[in-house]
Amino acid sequence: MRIGEYARHVAGMVDSYIYSFVKGRPAELYEASLHLVKAGGKRLRPTIAALTCRLVGGCEDTVIPAASALELIHVFTLIHDDIMDRDDMRRGVPTVHVVWGEPMAITAGDLLFAKALESAAGLAERGVDASRVVEVMRRLAKATAIVAEGQALDMLFEKREDVSIEEYMDMIRRKTGALIEASSTIGGLACGASRGDVERLSAYGMNIGVAFQIQDDILGIYGSEERLGKPVYSDLREGKKTLLTIYALKHLDEDRAQHVRRVLGRRDASRSEYEAAAELIRESGALDYARRLAKSLVEEALSSLRGINVRDEEAFKLLEELALFVVEREH
Amino acid sequence: MRIGEYARHVAGMVDSYIYSFVKGRPAELYEASLHLVKAGGKRLRPTIAALTCRLVGGCEDTVIPAASALELIHVFTLIHDDIMDRDDMRRGVPTVHVVWGEPMAITAGDLLFAKALESAAGLAERGVDASRVVEVMRRLAKATAIVAEGQALDMLFEKREDVSIEEYMDMIRRKTGALIEASSTIGGLACGASRGDVERLSAYGMNIGVAFQIQDDILGIYGSEERLGKPVYSDLREGKKTLLTIYALKHLDEDRAQHVRRVLGRRDASRSEYEAAAELIRESGALDYARRLAKSLVEEALSSLRGINVRDEEAFKLLEELALFVVEREH
Repeated sequence: MRIGEYARHVAGMVDSYIYSFVKGRPAELYEASLHLVKAGGKRLRPTIAALTCRLVGGCEDTVIPAASALELIHVFTLIHDDIMDRDDMRRGVPTVHVVWGEPMAITAGDLLFAKALESAAGLAERGVDASRVVEVMRRLAKATAIVAEGQALDMLFEKREDVSIEEYMDMIRRKTGALIEASSTIGGLACGASRGDVERLSAYGMNIGVAFQIQDDILGIYGSEERLGKPVYSDLREGKKTLLTIYALKHLDEDRAQHVRRVLGRRDASRSEYEAAAELIRESGALDYARRLAKSLVEEALSSLRGINVRDEEAFKLLEELALFVVEREH
Repeated sequence: MRIGEYARHVAGMVDSYIYSFVKGRPAELYEASLHLVKAGGKRLRPTIAALTCRLVGGCEDTVIPAASALELIHVFTLIHDDIMDRDDMRRGVPTVHVVWGEPMAITAGDLLFAKALESAAGLAERGVDASRVVEVMRRLAKATAIVAEGQALDMLFEKREDVSIEEYMDMIRRKTGALIEASSTIGGLACGASRGDVERLSAYGMNIGVAFQIQDDILGIYGSEERLGKPVYSDLREGKKTLLTIYALKHLDEDRAQHVRRVLGRRDASRSEYEAAAELIRESGALDYARRLAKSLVEEALSSLRGINVRDEEAFKLLEELALFVVEREH
């Protein structure tokens, strides 16, 4: 089995769990909450949780309530981020606040977060020891708190000119890394991993999480709009700090840097202005730098993976493939 | 000891727990998150949790992580509600979004919810059995999901003319009742209450929760602005459905009902127009009706309380006094 096929298998289990668990009234609230779940997505986090559960000798069924919780938390953060970033499209559909308005979108995100934690408690009914369930729920909550810190840093960085690469890396460890790290550790924790293996799973998850965000930064400038389901150049338009823009502004000569700076955060720049800025960023060496960094993070992730007491060879191979996919994907 | 004094005692414990637990960076995010915690509040939910813990034979120290979680969830919902309702003042200070902007306020609310669940997991370090900790966390999450449903219903009701008293009561059971019910059941659950006593604590909490909201509706029209720390008539200005306006519009003759309807939801009406509407609402019998209903709910709450296997007489007396305070309070 290849990783894409396995992810679809996990998506089937997680989606049916979510649809049976996240329902109620008023209908508008539940429709708004499930809008982006229905619109697609890779189910990256549930897939990692299912595979890390298998890796340490568990059965993927066990971890479905927590895998679903991870996806619900991810979608909750997307809904709120889209409001804050004023993004109109996501997963190829209009964002939640565009369809239902901001107040309902805020509430829909809140609901999903609550349902996520409630869902994770369902591990107890799948035979997971209560003290491990507490630990899983604690880690879900803690990861979400760290994601909020990352989101706040991201917003504060938009107003600053002098964000360093170190500061940026710290921010994406929080905003993107923390929840992917939670995915790999929770899968192991729920399925009986030793303390040492939980640590190694944590390193695996954090490294691919950060690599994933760097690849997102790359695709945000050089990706295909059609494959992404959202407009390219939105990071440039919103003046978001990304690894590429920070690197480029540091390494371009003053004239060219000035050129890039003039486009960043200008919502009304033309397509050809964005394209010219993207070309200058490439010339600075930022694209090569970002690709090399993402690849070295994936190497680190693979090295942590190899240290684990593997109980399921197929799960191991799929987690290897998943790590490579993170930096090779085009959407 | 009187209930006010005891609430201040609990506030001391809960606040120091919150301030030691809810800290980190960026500073702006944590300042925004703690803004309304610092501004005051009655700490009603933590006080209920501490007293119900004592009532069934526990020590109030045990429940502090969960009592703090209840306050954090309450403040998180206030921050998000203020954004949605566009309220400018709360607890005598400007609301979070007014000071830090909407994106930071959304994130601050999300952070508090996450920290709340993380905090509740801390029960495990205070000797609470892991399966009870899971149950407490599940109930916190479930109650918050129900609060989101209530908030969504409240927003949808603003657009409707024909909301019935039954629909309204269902809405406030969710929006206000659910978290106060969680407070009384969680206190009991964490401290070893039997299944039957948890049920009775649930009835106590839900009934005083609904009575609390009805009293809020009364104070929102007939209360003192200075004591409340927020503008009176805001429910009228925002066109919010309350028990009093629904009752009044149903019972006033067509001329007078028309008069009230003209003021509801008009953000630019004058003070004397609001005052005239408030007088018409009183004439309809709505104020008497609301007071009677709130009192009968408190009677029911007291009757559930009397069914419990009481291990601490002082806690029992304080919970009685608290139930009566709910409908006698002026802020």
